[in-house]
Amino acid sequence: MSALGRAAIVCIGTELTRGEIHNTNATWLAERLTALGLEVSSIEAVADDAAAIMGALERASSGNPLVACTGGLGPTTDDITSATVAAWQGVARVRDPQVLAGLEARLARAGRQLTASSAQQADFPAGARILDNPHGTAPGFAVRRARSSSGTTSDGATASPCQLFFMPGVPREMKPMFESFVAPAAQALVQGAQRQVRLRCFGVPESMLNDQLAGLEAQHGVRIGYRAHFPEVEVKLLAVASSAEAADSLAARAAADARARLGKAVYAEGERDLPRAVGELLRERGQTLSLAESCTGGLVGSLLTAYPASDFLLGGVISYANQVKLELLGVDAATLERHGAVSAEVARQMAEGARARFRSALALSLTGIAGPSGATEQKPVGLVYYAVSSAQGTVVRDVNVSNRPREGVQLYAAWCGLNLVREVLLAG
Amino acid sequence: MSALGRAAIVCIGTELTRGEIHNTNATWLAERLTALGLEVSSIEAVADDAAAIMGALERASSGNPLVACTGGLGPTTDDITSATVAAWQGVARVRDPQVLAGLEARLARAGRQLTASSAQQADFPAGARILDNPHGTAPGFAVRRARSSSGTTSDGATASPCQLFFMPGVPREMKPMFESFVAPAAQALVQGAQRQVRLRCFGVPESMLNDQLAGLEAQHGVRIGYRAHFPEVEVKLLAVASSAEAADSLAARAAADARARLGKAVYAEGERDLPRAVGELLRERGQTLSLAESCTGGLVGSLLTAYPASDFLLGGVISYANQVKLELLGVDAATLERHGAVSAEVARQMAEGARARFRSALALSLTGIAGPSGATEQKPVGLVYYAVSSAQGTVVRDVNVSNRPREGVQLYAAWCGLNLVREVLLAG
Repeated sequence: MSALGRAAIVCIGTELTRGEIHNTNATWLAERLTALGLEVSSIEAVADDAAAIMGALERASSGNPLVACTGGLGPTTDDITSATVAAWQGVARVRDPQVLAGLEARLARAGRQLTASSAQQADFPAGARILDNPHGTAPGFAVRRARSSSGTTSDGATASPCQLFFMPGVPREMKPMFESFVAPAAQALVQGAQRQVRLRCFGVPESMLNDQLAGLEAQHGVRIGYRAHFPEVEVKLLAVASSAEAADSLAARAAADARARLGKAVYAEGERDLPRAVGELLRERGQTLSLAESCTGGLVGSLLTAYPASDFLLGGVISYANQVKLELLGVDAATLERHGAVSAEVARQMAEGARARFRSALALSLTGIAGPSGATEQKPVGLVYYAVSSAQGTVVRDVNVSNRPREGVQLYAAWCGLNLVREVLLAG
Repeated sequence: MSALGRAAIVCIGTELTRGEIHNTNATWLAERLTALGLEVSSIEAVADDAAAIMGALERASSGNPLVACTGGLGPTTDDITSATVAAWQGVARVRDPQVLAGLEARLARAGRQLTASSAQQADFPAGARILDNPHGTAPGFAVRRARSSSGTTSDGATASPCQLFFMPGVPREMKPMFESFVAPAAQALVQGAQRQVRLRCFGVPESMLNDQLAGLEAQHGVRIGYRAHFPEVEVKLLAVASSAEAADSLAARAAADARARLGKAVYAEGERDLPRAVGELLRERGQTLSLAESCTGGLVGSLLTAYPASDFLLGGVISYANQVKLELLGVDAATLERHGAVSAEVARQMAEGARARFRSALALSLTGIAGPSGATEQKPVGLVYYAVSSAQGTVVRDVNVSNRPREGVQLYAAWCGLNLVREVLLAG
């Protein structure tokens, strides 16, 4: 992997060193930098403390041509990244009038005035390049630093200076900033081309995917990575070659083989998650959907409406109480009495009732025991019945989501239901 | 913070530096060490690479009396922690006959034989203390290291040597090992006591909270930290004192002052988020709730049912299509025509319709423009009307969630709605 450049990640924030939040930024940055062809040599998290930050920057910059940093750019007294970098570089901080005007305008739109603490977000180390932040108040910035002698060992005497990028800790602000400013700088460090294909899989455990793909790396000259991100597993195929065309064709051949081996476990490729893929399929087919959610309490609706959904989603009923199942979904009282609310029969009637009530092409229902209480001898926590009703009839399934907390049961069941909608659409 | 001991965390594994898995061990260790009263100065993740591991150990041990390490203790070729530590300490590796016998017995029970790669799990740096692992094959170990001069600055000339603990990367093996061996060593380092209070705030931006708490740190001798975790901001007050009682009373005084300054922005203290706090309040008051969700598409229901909710949540209607608002919620067609679906009038009728339909004590409705499309000249993306209907009448509010993507608009609006339920309950 001599063609790979090197990078380090520094995440600033006492909430990290106190373990108050997971450092998801570090994982995301490490994955992106790796996908861009760089080798991440270290990831360090430090507290909002000037000496600790300077130490981490010193270490990260001495051995790497690129350092991606997050955190400490906001308006509060514990946001000291900009001041600390200025001190570390031995320069003053300069207030940027354009950024300040932008801050004022932004606050004015929200009916607020610029305060001293807000204004400090317009202060940058002298000479820093300002990185625009269209998704939040605090811009990022980038500085250069000569690399110390320890950094030249791996790159020889021609080592370029280190570029350090400082981005906000808020993921939705950090990620676009990374793509706009850090990704191009990272790509410039890599020789050769690479291409990554992401296969999104649901319903098959990681170890089984791994078995099904045995030998694929050697056969196609690609590298396989797995990323289990509940409730799905992502299979990443990385092809590295001398040209973009060669990498593309390597990746395409490997992806075709992998899809053939994995079959219907692959529900999409790339960025789309299952709720989005199902929504797009409904839209393509011109079909409408309604929902009858009991144990998921609105989660399926929430997942689908995270993307524009008004052209296929008519609505739904959150039928938490049994009375709602009877009155709004037309579930039969005798069926409910005989089989219980968590049963294949009630799931069927909920889906059929929703389809009739909303006059939708398809209806999805879910009823189960999310836990932690509610289990019986026959019905454990994690048992969920779900059904899809359409003009072709009603399909009822069940799943037992074991060893998961309440939210895990709900999320896995929601995806099972959405996957059944997908299956019915593809078969219909 | 001189009363706090210091610690560092080093996590070993290329799966971390490639971003293939979240470093949940680091979060867990940081939280536990912080709770034990230590200040975690840095968390570093490095690849399975001898030079990288040695560099991280050198840095971590030079400034801290305690270092907790995870990973690289297993049987595969990339598990090099033990060999690397031996090289770093300048000692040989010694095979422990008792550990070897245990490995053999364990494998025999699984019908397998000891291989060379398995046997290396019984090799430890000479002089290391072996840490028993009742939950897996690879024991941990601990070594001592004299701290370099840079470590003595914060602790004076009496700095004790650094203790380094090496634990497996598998969380269910690592955690009990930490409690048995690392936690007692950590406690021995702590002088005095500390207490943290977390105030959960909603509806007031971080910079404004910061302004309202100006001077509180100096006044009460506590440290304030902010954690913006959309849509809320958490204010953390940390008190350190010579005894637990003193820390408690310091924290309590500071918290009372902060609550007085922040007023109703504080919705809870500690672990509970707003959906949970609202659910608990409904339960306490013996009140039931129903929902009428348009732009949030089931999100409020999903947030409330993330916790057991069957004793207060009757159900809801996801009224995505206008027809559903008319048919299931009894919204008046003329009102809908005149004011549009996104209006105070329709929000009011949705809440009143849901309350009548579900016969609940309270009903919450939301209707708005989540974006990215759907805006008009009068009604921008982010505008959401929400209403709570109860025996006391119906309260209608609106909010304009600007500069947020679709999911941000939905989440912020959902919290606004839940906060209004809380206000109505507290006033009623």
